[in-house]
Amino acid sequence: MVRVVPDTQARRRAALRARLRADELDALLVTNLLNVRYLTGFTGSNAALLVAAADDDGDERGTLFCTDGRYDTQSAKQVPDLPRVIERPSDLALARAAGEAGTGRVGFESHHVTVDGLTALTDAAGGSSLIRAPGLVEALRLVKDDAEVEALRMACSAADAALADLLEHGGIAPGRPEVDVARDLESRMRDHGANGPAFESIVATGANSAVPHHRPTAAVLRCGDLLKMDFGALVDGYHSDMTRTVVLGEPAAWQRELYELVAAAQAAGRAALLAGADVRDVDAAARTVIEDAGYGDRFLHGLGHGVGLEIHEAPMLAKVGEGRLSPGMTVTVEPGVYLAGKGGVRIEDTLVVRDGAPELLTLTTKQLIVV
Amino acid sequence: MVRVVPDTQARRRAALRARLRADELDALLVTNLLNVRYLTGFTGSNAALLVAAADDDGDERGTLFCTDGRYDTQSAKQVPDLPRVIERPSDLALARAAGEAGTGRVGFESHHVTVDGLTALTDAAGGSSLIRAPGLVEALRLVKDDAEVEALRMACSAADAALADLLEHGGIAPGRPEVDVARDLESRMRDHGANGPAFESIVATGANSAVPHHRPTAAVLRCGDLLKMDFGALVDGYHSDMTRTVVLGEPAAWQRELYELVAAAQAAGRAALLAGADVRDVDAAARTVIEDAGYGDRFLHGLGHGVGLEIHEAPMLAKVGEGRLSPGMTVTVEPGVYLAGKGGVRIEDTLVVRDGAPELLTLTTKQLIVV
Repeated sequence: MVRVVPDTQARRRAALRARLRADELDALLVTNLLNVRYLTGFTGSNAALLVAAADDDGDERGTLFCTDGRYDTQSAKQVPDLPRVIERPSDLALARAAGEAGTGRVGFESHHVTVDGLTALTDAAGGSSLIRAPGLVEALRLVKDDAEVEALRMACSAADAALADLLEHGGIAPGRPEVDVARDLESRMRDHGANGPAFESIVATGANSAVPHHRPTAAVLRCGDLLKMDFGALVDGYHSDMTRTVVLGEPAAWQRELYELVAAAQAAGRAALLAGADVRDVDAAARTVIEDAGYGDRFLHGLGHGVGLEIHEAPMLAKVGEGRLSPGMTVTVEPGVYLAGKGGVRIEDTLVVRDGAPELLTLTTKQLIVV
Repeated sequence: MVRVVPDTQARRRAALRARLRADELDALLVTNLLNVRYLTGFTGSNAALLVAAADDDGDERGTLFCTDGRYDTQSAKQVPDLPRVIERPSDLALARAAGEAGTGRVGFESHHVTVDGLTALTDAAGGSSLIRAPGLVEALRLVKDDAEVEALRMACSAADAALADLLEHGGIAPGRPEVDVARDLESRMRDHGANGPAFESIVATGANSAVPHHRPTAAVLRCGDLLKMDFGALVDGYHSDMTRTVVLGEPAAWQRELYELVAAAQAAGRAALLAGADVRDVDAAARTVIEDAGYGDRFLHGLGHGVGLEIHEAPMLAKVGEGRLSPGMTVTVEPGVYLAGKGGVRIEDTLVVRDGAPELLTLTTKQLIVV
């Protein structure tokens, strides 16, 4: 008898069921939409999923998907392998179903469900006990499978190609407003297969480059400016994230020094990105380089963050981060030094943690680009 | 003595303080980012606000704004009128500040704060009591002030102009993929002043038009298709929302009849959009037209929803909606009829409830456009 290989989402649900049994939960009510997407493939804007722990591997008895009438057709295509309930609000419908089925201990996503939401769920669940169960699906999402890495690779590639195009076609030139550069980058990412930008692009020229999260304005690029571009592409729900800082015209000595400092810190951060490493140590590896140069107080944020179905997700590479790296985690490494009123430099790649050296998904050069 | 007119955000905070005193709260911890934006003008991605009730009108004693280091420069510009704390996590920093100041009853946004989040806030707040206080800022946001209506007007105008451009430049033509039409619309909205699309545009041709929330694909437009386009522009954080359904080539009789039916329902919905009306009655006014024609079960969603800082916000015009309309509320009216496997029609405008007839912000014709 041929054993059918379960599809990606069914495999993920099986891993979750094992975790539920270990945590002595009879079911998990998944209400976070990205977690529902991860476990089912459904991409609409409203859904919930009740995953029953069941007692043997392949059995999905008691597992129910719910969305509303707008998504009847779409969910029939995307979630053909689970019983579907069409009702709104979907979370309450599934809490009621759990109660009616006599399910005892129903975990809920206490890091997503609001205080008022829990009151409503409790009313709906009848005799079932709702148990705090934060982060169970996110724990699975931490380590990306091959399909996820492939989507991230395509997203990173679209961003790389967009920047190359922009440079080749003279898109970075004195007199051009920041907003036009941002729009141009986003349009070129789509040309290279992105479904859209992964987040609102940051294009910051001159003194604006010293603002870590500057929103593009009508300010025009000038000769002598540092120009910081932080952008990414969205492909099949997965987010890439990269930053490059370039100089318009011959770089001043301070610009070149600042750039070399940040590049050295970024290289140190990438070198520390090893399976088993504590996330705080990875942050420290890059931060020490900047602190030793006397700019510790100008590096205003963590070194990096996980990327995947969210643009910011675990693990956080930061002083206040927690945990250790595992192969298959995808993260950014993005140190920056910001000199208020003058200019700033940030250099950022997206990488996959591997058993040996990390795999770089962002392939644009990290040499200083002079336009 | 000249009395200075308080600025928009200060006026909103004063209205909130009056509400806090009425509810016997000493302060409100605002953690929803859009609510913080509404009350302060801050547009970054992390912030919290503690609004102290105080005991007289103009006094903001005890009110504190908090964000993190990335937004120090930006928040100094955008929130010059409040004391700022730079700390992360911002919500916990302000809960601690409330506790240290001996604030007794601190309201929190129980419709936004998660179950786990409340545990952390309670730890941080020390001796202060955290009291459920859902929807206080949203209640203010329901009725838009002139500045908000102006932003919505510009957003609607950008969407109207984009569609006019698209039609004029032959952007709707057999052989063109849905994704290209979507991208073209979004690009043209930016040409007309949008900061970006208000949401992922829906472009659905042929049988896809029967899927209410279809995501654009590589499917190409064909002669004889109904083409449904649901899109909107984002201007200064405000979202417009419109849908038009056009026909490629000479419409078939069923297409024309379906269109006329939905147009009649949409007109009935707009006519019912009066100050004082129950939102369920507005929904019913349009729904009855469709039910009487025998298509009640093909109208798969509510009639409309509020728009503003969110693309979907209160009030909901739906069978399960609650409340009555007031002048200054901005809503969509968007009936649709969907014939699975065949095609669907939706017609949607954004409008402002006024004392008499509603004000139409979407100005594109509702006559059937034949391309």
